[in-house]
Amino acid sequence: MNSITPRPVDTVIAAARAFLGERLTLNDAIRQQHGRGEDTTTPTLPDAVAFVDTTEEVSRLLALCHQHGVPVTPFGAGTSLEGHVNPVRGGISLDLSRMAAIEEVSAEDMDGLIQPGVTRQQLNEHLRDQGLFFPVDPGSHCTIGGMCATRASGTNAVRYGTIRENVLGLEVVLADGRVIQTGGRTRKAANGYDLTRLFIGSEGTLGVITRIRLRLYGIPEAMVSAVCQFPDLASAVNTVIATMQLGVPVARIELLDEVQMEACIAYSKLEGMAPTPTLFLEFHGTEAAVGEQAETVQAIATDHGGSGFAWARDAETRNKLWKARHDAYWACLAYRPGKKGIATDVCVPISRLAEALLGAKEDIRASGLDAPIVGHVGDGNFHTVILVTDGDQADLDRAWELDRKIVHRALQLGGTCSGEHGVGLGKREFLEVEHGPEALAVMRSLKQTLDPKGILNPGKIFRN
Amino acid sequence: MNSITPRPVDTVIAAARAFLGERLTLNDAIRQQHGRGEDTTTPTLPDAVAFVDTTEEVSRLLALCHQHGVPVTPFGAGTSLEGHVNPVRGGISLDLSRMAAIEEVSAEDMDGLIQPGVTRQQLNEHLRDQGLFFPVDPGSHCTIGGMCATRASGTNAVRYGTIRENVLGLEVVLADGRVIQTGGRTRKAANGYDLTRLFIGSEGTLGVITRIRLRLYGIPEAMVSAVCQFPDLASAVNTVIATMQLGVPVARIELLDEVQMEACIAYSKLEGMAPTPTLFLEFHGTEAAVGEQAETVQAIATDHGGSGFAWARDAETRNKLWKARHDAYWACLAYRPGKKGIATDVCVPISRLAEALLGAKEDIRASGLDAPIVGHVGDGNFHTVILVTDGDQADLDRAWELDRKIVHRALQLGGTCSGEHGVGLGKREFLEVEHGPEALAVMRSLKQTLDPKGILNPGKIFRN
Repeated sequence: MNSITPRPVDTVIAAARAFLGERLTLNDAIRQQHGRGEDTTTPTLPDAVAFVDTTEEVSRLLALCHQHGVPVTPFGAGTSLEGHVNPVRGGISLDLSRMAAIEEVSAEDMDGLIQPGVTRQQLNEHLRDQGLFFPVDPGSHCTIGGMCATRASGTNAVRYGTIRENVLGLEVVLADGRVIQTGGRTRKAANGYDLTRLFIGSEGTLGVITRIRLRLYGIPEAMVSAVCQFPDLASAVNTVIATMQLGVPVARIELLDEVQMEACIAYSKLEGMAPTPTLFLEFHGTEAAVGEQAETVQAIATDHGGSGFAWARDAETRNKLWKARHDAYWACLAYRPGKKGIATDVCVPISRLAEALLGAKEDIRASGLDAPIVGHVGDGNFHTVILVTDGDQADLDRAWELDRKIVHRALQLGGTCSGEHGVGLGKREFLEVEHGPEALAVMRSLKQTLDPKGILNPGKIFRN
Repeated sequence: MNSITPRPVDTVIAAARAFLGERLTLNDAIRQQHGRGEDTTTPTLPDAVAFVDTTEEVSRLLALCHQHGVPVTPFGAGTSLEGHVNPVRGGISLDLSRMAAIEEVSAEDMDGLIQPGVTRQQLNEHLRDQGLFFPVDPGSHCTIGGMCATRASGTNAVRYGTIRENVLGLEVVLADGRVIQTGGRTRKAANGYDLTRLFIGSEGTLGVITRIRLRLYGIPEAMVSAVCQFPDLASAVNTVIATMQLGVPVARIELLDEVQMEACIAYSKLEGMAPTPTLFLEFHGTEAAVGEQAETVQAIATDHGGSGFAWARDAETRNKLWKARHDAYWACLAYRPGKKGIATDVCVPISRLAEALLGAKEDIRASGLDAPIVGHVGDGNFHTVILVTDGDQADLDRAWELDRKIVHRALQLGGTCSGEHGVGLGKREFLEVEHGPEALAVMRSLKQTLDPKGILNPGKIFRN
């Protein structure tokens, strides 16, 4: 019956087929893969998945979706822990993973130009021969486009900053298909509004990032890792606080509680380590500087009851340690086979870290749930991985109650609901408390200005 | 005659008198003082100057101006070099210099909460006893509110970042008088749009900053300054490039050309120095680290023909050196008594620094003008201080032609028209070339959203 008006999304699909061909797919398995990330949200299916290859394709597709009011949800590697990639209102899942070219690397200027689907592993493998590296390292195999969208960080942020400090400029496709360039190649600029920082952390709700100019760093002359174990959590945390306050330029300082250590020892075969609160550290610099830094922290740790401060200069031992750290989430899942993890992500001022962590520990105990703790404690950021049975509503309810307790304590301590995972679906309820209604209204007005039809990743960051 | 409708500004003045009393003034001398900053722009007078004491007063005044469509131009210490403080459409000059309280300092969290009228000198004097300092240091006696508004930096940015990286959060009064809090106290966050960075560098056109939470730093265990002189500009620049590419964490690395050195030697009585291109350096860290860093740079400088690498550990020598550097602009004015300076402010990727600097040198020679060069060369940023006779239109025209040449070369080299002084009136013409029309249109749409009546610092950043 020709008299039936086609759905807007079908109009978009038909028109986009003309330039995307089979890269626009309605295949059920592929739509399922694009229904959620690595979280416990309820998957929602897009009407179609578009695998784009160029900025021009993104622009044409967004112009179509804008014209017809069809939702677009950007998708990178699907590693979100907060429901960022769920197409909660259907429409198009815009998969940018094929846009994975490293277009330029300048060793002289220590910068690079990449497409958003490049992963940090891919970039660092590419850079190694040139003596360069990119420091921002979330635990997952995420894309750098996704890292920009969620304002990601990781273990090196305490020394090198988050993605926010390490992006010089962006190419962004706006909701209506216009393409803009933000920022530039210089290390600083006072040349108008900071559009780059506006899109970083906007979670795909203001525009789609199609190109990124990154800061790169020379691989340090020397890198030393260290491990130190503590009798209790407070001693480990106080070691971190003292180290930060002394201004030791640690490259990494990560805390694993006794439960997380138990999981990691089993999963990553960490021989010789005990399941007690532990710091993993790394120092970057000249040979002399890293030795001096490690000695300073060793002395602080010893003062706080730390023992077995074990340095390693060889790449093999260091790599094993950091692989274990990056696998912490997987170690949690293996610790209680069959369960899924809900990761909390609070961040607090460093002086309140002990209170936030010990309070969380108490809440976990009271909840009766398993929830290892691991954290980028040099920044005041830590995660609890609450282990739940996927689909068991009572379990999920207890987990979310625990999450809320941990977040509200962090907010009371001057902290934030999310240090690095982003808001997505899971943290929306906290934003009004955290920012106040007036600031949130300003955020909404920016959304309204840049995406008046609300097609870009609808339902994320803001409730309704 | 009561039938004459009062001007909107008179209505605002009458209403604001009720809560500002004599702190709202129509005094001619005070209006003159608020007519321009330290630049060569044509002064324009505000109808009145309001000396505010509280956020609430700013809010009430802005609500009034919003209601009546009266322009508001924020004013701090009046040190702008780009016409930021000129009330080009009259209205109210909003003087925030009395809001100068240091409200909180936390040595534990290494942060502080201040009002916008606090100057960096005032803050650092306050912090010294607590072993803390704030590193962002433009040359002038500016307020930190003004530094936020213009995205300022200075000599320490190469190590500590600009004001952008050192502000954790802001209190901002919006055009209609609403008050918002942005950011927070944590070192990182992924909690919605980055409003803090949106207001930093917005030059008073999107809101008025009334409170600032700053990152602070521990005073380093050791500080060593050094001076090294070179036979020519290229050798000095190449020393900088090699130092940056090697990743030496210099705290400061400043270049003065032979003309600037001649001016500084006379003004600051720098005995024993020759009028040749010179680097001023500083190293921060532990005793061992600063020694190692200084030795490394000394070796690089020697390789490039540098001589007389003079270290100083004592505070007196260091202070004299940096006072001379901070007085460079005044040394330029004293070098040609009676003249005024037009400061260019380009910034380029470090690999293009030699080309940008040597090209600028050639342009200066061709112009016949006196224009010493001084720069934050570790960031690729340098200034030429073009000396002109204030009011001599032919002189000013030649100077602006020289400025344009230097800017356009920088843009061709992937640089920016302003590294740290901001756009104001003087750099507006370059923004469309630099960002492209689409990105500039996005900036305009943000302005329209947050200040729909265009009352906040009208005429700045955007032409028309």
